[in-house]
Amino acid sequence: MNAVPTELLRDAERLSEAVVRPIPGSRKVFVPGSRDDLRVPMREIALQRTPTLFGGEDNPPVTVYDTSGPYTDPDTHIDLAAGLSPLRAQWIAERNDSEPLPGLTSEFGRAREHDPRLSSVRFPGRILPRRAIAGANVSQMHYARRGIVTPEMEYVAIRENQRLDQVRDAGLLAQHRGQSFGAAIQARITPEFVRDEIARGRAILPNNINHPESEPMIIGRNFLTKINANIGNSAVSSGIAEEVEKLVWAIRWGADTVMDLSTGKHIHETREWIVRNSPVPIGTVPIYQALEKVDGRAEELTWEIFRDTLVEQAEQGVDYFTIHAGVLLRYVPLTAKRVTGIVSRGGSILAKWCLAHHKENFLYTHFEDICDIMKAYDVAFSLGDGLRPGCIADANDAAQFGELETLGELTKIAWKHDVQTMIEGPGHVPMQLIKENMDKQLAECGEAPFYTLGPLTTDIAPGYDHITSAIGAAMIGWFGTAMLCYVTPKEHLGLPDRDDVRDGIMAYKIAAHAADLAKGHPGAQVRDNALSKARFEFRWEDQFHLGLDPEKAKEFHDETLPKDAHKLAHFCSMCGPHFCSMKITQDVRDYAAEHGVGETDALAAGMAEKSEEFRAAGAEVYRPG
Amino acid sequence: MNAVPTELLRDAERLSEAVVRPIPGSRKVFVPGSRDDLRVPMREIALQRTPTLFGGEDNPPVTVYDTSGPYTDPDTHIDLAAGLSPLRAQWIAERNDSEPLPGLTSEFGRAREHDPRLSSVRFPGRILPRRAIAGANVSQMHYARRGIVTPEMEYVAIRENQRLDQVRDAGLLAQHRGQSFGAAIQARITPEFVRDEIARGRAILPNNINHPESEPMIIGRNFLTKINANIGNSAVSSGIAEEVEKLVWAIRWGADTVMDLSTGKHIHETREWIVRNSPVPIGTVPIYQALEKVDGRAEELTWEIFRDTLVEQAEQGVDYFTIHAGVLLRYVPLTAKRVTGIVSRGGSILAKWCLAHHKENFLYTHFEDICDIMKAYDVAFSLGDGLRPGCIADANDAAQFGELETLGELTKIAWKHDVQTMIEGPGHVPMQLIKENMDKQLAECGEAPFYTLGPLTTDIAPGYDHITSAIGAAMIGWFGTAMLCYVTPKEHLGLPDRDDVRDGIMAYKIAAHAADLAKGHPGAQVRDNALSKARFEFRWEDQFHLGLDPEKAKEFHDETLPKDAHKLAHFCSMCGPHFCSMKITQDVRDYAAEHGVGETDALAAGMAEKSEEFRAAGAEVYRPG
Repeated sequence: MNAVPTELLRDAERLSEAVVRPIPGSRKVFVPGSRDDLRVPMREIALQRTPTLFGGEDNPPVTVYDTSGPYTDPDTHIDLAAGLSPLRAQWIAERNDSEPLPGLTSEFGRAREHDPRLSSVRFPGRILPRRAIAGANVSQMHYARRGIVTPEMEYVAIRENQRLDQVRDAGLLAQHRGQSFGAAIQARITPEFVRDEIARGRAILPNNINHPESEPMIIGRNFLTKINANIGNSAVSSGIAEEVEKLVWAIRWGADTVMDLSTGKHIHETREWIVRNSPVPIGTVPIYQALEKVDGRAEELTWEIFRDTLVEQAEQGVDYFTIHAGVLLRYVPLTAKRVTGIVSRGGSILAKWCLAHHKENFLYTHFEDICDIMKAYDVAFSLGDGLRPGCIADANDAAQFGELETLGELTKIAWKHDVQTMIEGPGHVPMQLIKENMDKQLAECGEAPFYTLGPLTTDIAPGYDHITSAIGAAMIGWFGTAMLCYVTPKEHLGLPDRDDVRDGIMAYKIAAHAADLAKGHPGAQVRDNALSKARFEFRWEDQFHLGLDPEKAKEFHDETLPKDAHKLAHFCSMCGPHFCSMKITQDVRDYAAEHGVGETDALAAGMAEKSEEFRAAGAEVYRPG
Repeated sequence: MNAVPTELLRDAERLSEAVVRPIPGSRKVFVPGSRDDLRVPMREIALQRTPTLFGGEDNPPVTVYDTSGPYTDPDTHIDLAAGLSPLRAQWIAERNDSEPLPGLTSEFGRAREHDPRLSSVRFPGRILPRRAIAGANVSQMHYARRGIVTPEMEYVAIRENQRLDQVRDAGLLAQHRGQSFGAAIQARITPEFVRDEIARGRAILPNNINHPESEPMIIGRNFLTKINANIGNSAVSSGIAEEVEKLVWAIRWGADTVMDLSTGKHIHETREWIVRNSPVPIGTVPIYQALEKVDGRAEELTWEIFRDTLVEQAEQGVDYFTIHAGVLLRYVPLTAKRVTGIVSRGGSILAKWCLAHHKENFLYTHFEDICDIMKAYDVAFSLGDGLRPGCIADANDAAQFGELETLGELTKIAWKHDVQTMIEGPGHVPMQLIKENMDKQLAECGEAPFYTLGPLTTDIAPGYDHITSAIGAAMIGWFGTAMLCYVTPKEHLGLPDRDDVRDGIMAYKIAAHAADLAKGHPGAQVRDNALSKARFEFRWEDQFHLGLDPEKAKEFHDETLPKDAHKLAHFCSMCGPHFCSMKITQDVRDYAAEHGVGETDALAAGMAEKSEEFRAAGAEVYRPG
């Protein structure tokens, strides 16, 4: 082990209190699986009793999906320089189909490893990477297709269920009928269902064998809708310690995966710190780093440089790669008359390379070579939409849909190699054209998971594109997108800061949850119901705790009614103590309970005589105390 | 005229610079109508030339809808104590069907007028109100049905067109085909079309004859989607001067109408200041004030008190009244088993009254009496959804839809009186249930304009309900809702401050515009296209100016790249100067232009020989200067 780079560590150790403090009202719980080392973390939100006024019953705790990893677990000691505990290491090792390498096998990785100038920024605790033994395929898809339910698959099944059986037993599962547009939504997620979905290619479980620290999760149309947050430095700003903190911040608010889009100076070292400390899958766009290796000159990119980059990153533990293999030479001219041309960075790099060489995209021609790398580490494809529309005018055009057809063709090749694959999509698309995207993706790509940026439903709101895009994201999530890539308020304008990341994630958690409700995922409405009941009963703290952002909710409430006593107040801050519709509703409820509900005729008949009695009692059912 | 209340005026005169400063990059223009005193204000955004690098052409200015009134017109002197100029006074007077009253006719109004304790808060410049002469009906619907095109209707036609002919002539009208779900979207709005829509009841033009200061606007499914912002003090906070400033702030960002939901001490006087200074229609919920008159005891409300309140407000110039006449006795018990009961304040007041008296809602039994008042001043109905769902669980239930059916019945009665009518709707509704609301409203209410709160598509994000609801608002707007009532981030938590109002309005301007794009309103895409072209060409200032919030966009950009020079920078702040997809796209575009576009086979054939030349030229088409 290298010496601890004290300079960096001082920064890294200082994860702000804000990013690691416990989430108010919650505790981390672990649901055990079939083996001792399989414990699935969830977040349990304890609720108060209903006030006597409203019935006085107990309210069962609500279990929610937890992406925050050990950072919100008070029982875990966080040491960024050591990295997280490799919870999957044993599972990987006991499959006996991979082996630790004697050293890094990428040229670039080896060069960085031995460069003394990097010792101050290098992650100190790196162990040797693993790779599939010769001829083996370590992808979850490969296991799934051979009928093997891995611990990862079981983990995912438990995680997706979110202790739904408790809810079912408590009789709290009633909800509106969903409209899933043909998805295969399950009443209960079994490990076998997870296996089957992965085997069919309808879901992916991204977890590189070199990222044993990751908590398994699944991306597929028949599971809960996921969201991705991007982090990354750039030529303009940002540093390593800042990036790790961004990761922890993003998963605190609910990012299911994080893409590291760094393009700066210590891209390799930054990534190592991030992967070692990430409980969520990490995705990258390897062409960004490959481009740096040729000093930004796209035409000098070669398959060999790119290949070495894939191996370098696969051995660090990156879980999915965006690969823009669908940017074919013949599609490039189709973008020339667009209003905003090619807006994907990866897409534009490949387009430039194609034009410069007048050759077919080398990612396309070497696609099977890439598959060979992917399956040796279990890296999943995220087939990039290099030709996605950058504005409303360019939506659903020939370039975009041509590329999508090619991505469908590539999906089948990847599946031939048992390599897990998802498909990137949208960008800017007006509402009436969103469903066509989803339908075409399902048809062309054999139901491989769709992973979309937004889409933004209008171009006219720079500064608010988390909202323009949350609208599109909710809709496309409903239609069947498996993972939504977030957009922050700074989109098109600048680099997101911490508040922007939080705002972007919140907008996307909302979109994903709205999609889950609309699809009719069993139990999706449990949290809504619990929160609304708390709201009605003036259980303010419960309302905050059940929200996606308990801290913001409390802060907003405190602005109007700062006194602690008001957390118990039986009125809302909107109307004040003397005028409150919920108070009046309780009158209605009490009255109806006393006189029979639903039998409106009988009620009407009985009410004339009772109304006088009601008025005599003060016509004010709410009596404090 | 009363003496100027100097204490209040000091406050009122101090409209912050922030709420009245000119909108960057814009100027107010006036499009003339058929008479000299008909000049329709719009906002024209001037654009820079395209840089030589990208073609060097001129970019025509973009005209956008302007709700901000004289406040953003540097040629207008604002004097809050005098109120705005009564631009419609002559149009109203020359119809010879109304007359100035000798004095206020409401008891309450007269009492307030003569209360010396109120002199310090009373609006000083009040003139006597008008009322229809005996037997006359001054509603725009009445004129419309008699075939009269009023100046108000012509004004609206010009306003809705937004100088579209200029855009058409410039060949910039191409856009995606919309999906309007059966709306009658027009290529060009004529005064006759406006008249016909009002006559049919498919649109309303809310403009009380006692609010001659208002700039006519129209609410209907076949016109641009509108948004409403709520302002109002409450028992907990706020004051008069603050409310006027909120109005000016709300219309600056794009509120098409403003509802004054005040419930505090000087509700009558506050309203007068607001109406006199408002260029947009003002709506109220008269039952709130009526309840104050009986000290908050709903059961003591009487038709007489309510009637006096309607007259009081109608004579002040309120343009539309929310009237909860659909909260029938038989529906009240249907809410008892809801998770959140009755959440509408008005709905709960009427429910309580019905229960206390065991009588039918007096707004329902006196509905035709109300119609008589409405048509004497041209106040429009906003038939209130007192039983709207307050959470996802309660959406689309028997109480909600029962009330909607009654609102349909009442619409037909209002139309019998030629009273303009819109229908309030939604609340909390998951995405898969939104369209049913719209379809049922269209069917039950004969296409009377729908005016919906959100809907919020999930309950779990207190602090972010402008987003949960913008998703639903965009969708229901697309499906046919004519006006969207905004929700701020403080919904359910507290009173919105200035930033919250701005955030709420922005979310709703986005939703409304996304809806217009999706419906396919002619010209809806012009601003998107202009902004995206500016974005592609690195015309940063133009991008800011074309945005819904130029100030925020610039502020965000400045955070990353604060130097003025960067406003001309040919790279984005996301990627920095050395790595930019737009830069590369320009290579593609230049290359394609040189070698032919679209003929991909020919291109492919020709490119092999050209690629060497391209590389020899440095493979870097971007050359500054």
